[in-house]
Amino acid sequence: MTVKVQTVCIIGTGLIGGSLALALKKSGFCQRIVGAGRTETTLMKALELGVVDHYETDYAEAVKDADIVVVAVPLSAMKNVFEKIAPALSSTAVVTDAGSAKQSVIRDAQAAFGESSNRFVAGHPIAGTEKSGVTAAFTELYENRKVILTPAENTDSDAVNLVSEMWQAAGAEVESMSAQHHDMVLAGTSHLPHILAFGLVDCLNNLEEVDEVFRFAAGGFRDFTRIASSDPVMWRDICLSNREDILGMIKKYEDQLQMISSALQDSDGDALIEIFQRAKKARDQFSNQ
Amino acid sequence: MTVKVQTVCIIGTGLIGGSLALALKKSGFCQRIVGAGRTETTLMKALELGVVDHYETDYAEAVKDADIVVVAVPLSAMKNVFEKIAPALSSTAVVTDAGSAKQSVIRDAQAAFGESSNRFVAGHPIAGTEKSGVTAAFTELYENRKVILTPAENTDSDAVNLVSEMWQAAGAEVESMSAQHHDMVLAGTSHLPHILAFGLVDCLNNLEEVDEVFRFAAGGFRDFTRIASSDPVMWRDICLSNREDILGMIKKYEDQLQMISSALQDSDGDALIEIFQRAKKARDQFSNQ
Repeated sequence: MTVKVQTVCIIGTGLIGGSLALALKKSGFCQRIVGAGRTETTLMKALELGVVDHYETDYAEAVKDADIVVVAVPLSAMKNVFEKIAPALSSTAVVTDAGSAKQSVIRDAQAAFGESSNRFVAGHPIAGTEKSGVTAAFTELYENRKVILTPAENTDSDAVNLVSEMWQAAGAEVESMSAQHHDMVLAGTSHLPHILAFGLVDCLNNLEEVDEVFRFAAGGFRDFTRIASSDPVMWRDICLSNREDILGMIKKYEDQLQMISSALQDSDGDALIEIFQRAKKARDQFSNQ
Repeated sequence: MTVKVQTVCIIGTGLIGGSLALALKKSGFCQRIVGAGRTETTLMKALELGVVDHYETDYAEAVKDADIVVVAVPLSAMKNVFEKIAPALSSTAVVTDAGSAKQSVIRDAQAAFGESSNRFVAGHPIAGTEKSGVTAAFTELYENRKVILTPAENTDSDAVNLVSEMWQAAGAEVESMSAQHHDMVLAGTSHLPHILAFGLVDCLNNLEEVDEVFRFAAGGFRDFTRIASSDPVMWRDICLSNREDILGMIKKYEDQLQMISSALQDSDGDALIEIFQRAKKARDQFSNQ
């Protein structure tokens, strides 16, 4: 690959930003990675771990020579970061993000960048672990994972292509869809499951027999609740940013639970087995993908 | 260890029964393992895989020389198996089971064994995978796993000790509690999570965008829904056998979900973060156990 990108600036060097930096370094996609963030100790750690080549705590300073700026901060911080970098960006710079909800980020970007928002490409890497922070970052996080780009109507196609190439260099497979569709799909496949897992652990934690409950939990429970160890701030932000779609999905899930509960109330084994069989079939198909 | 047990008969040589057979063979706990079940092809497979030394399709024939009989069949089949073996058991034989709900099994055992039910020790190995069948069985399944015994008031203590030794020989750690307490704790820690996972997959499977939803699912979703690949018949049986406790737990969970939904409705980020933080703290403590 001919290196055509000099500098990638990554704002927010946690699991998502840090892993991207490591993967881009390994691939030789760019000459230099500049890290930026609020907390200097985190940036120092990122430098020490070889995640970034240089760091800045001033966002405007950090982005001024960047060809690509990746904003990998919690959704609630996006708007503020966009506003701070807007005046300092070069006219050819492309900005992208890694947020888990896309309509809200696009609104924030359009407000902050105005006419230059055609150089903003909303993106979401479908990858992550329940861990967070730069020490959790690793080079292979995006290998064979999907990244969804949700360009708006005014987005420049060369900007989309550049962001696409960047994620491919990191090992990911890139797909495009509308932000609206993304938010609905992710509400089902990621946001609802996280809420259900947080809810289950909190629910069990309120039982009198809480110690017993956790003591006799087996592998299934461990797997099922792993995502309840995810970052609470990040998940509050996702919930608030994708509120409508998530509320719709919770409603659907409540109806589903009510259906199971009614079958159980009536000791209707046939109805239960029908639900469980449909679910098993779908889950087994998913496993075999 | 001095071998004091000649013959263990395992009725139901699936994942649970088959793995116990393999572990007991490895440990030298008994001289001989007799398998029994409804389906001869399964038993032939068990013999071929070295899981059992001998098999019988007639339950009475299978148990007649057994020192210990382990009934590892679905909960709905327990009563029938108990009734079939009752007349053929030797007076010193100890019977135990591996069902996931205990009050219903004890009722079935007392009905079938009558006065001899003092030689029945209800038990539940907290182990398993989402797979089932003898080909899924493996020697290490019970290593460092907990087995809960729930002896009734009339259970002989030497019978409890023998079953305890058997599970310890298979690598497990044995604990005792009342059947009532077991069923309540397991409703929270295992039965509810399985219902939630089956429910989520079925709920998503009903969406119009079902292909998209599964296509963009990441590792968190994979872990969260793994248990939805579990055996539907087994889970129907567990639901029906532990109906009251599970209904109570679903009700608690519905209240929890309603609490999250209300917070989201009100865009109350503080309330959301409080729930997520409590859950993360509890889950992290569980991980560090």
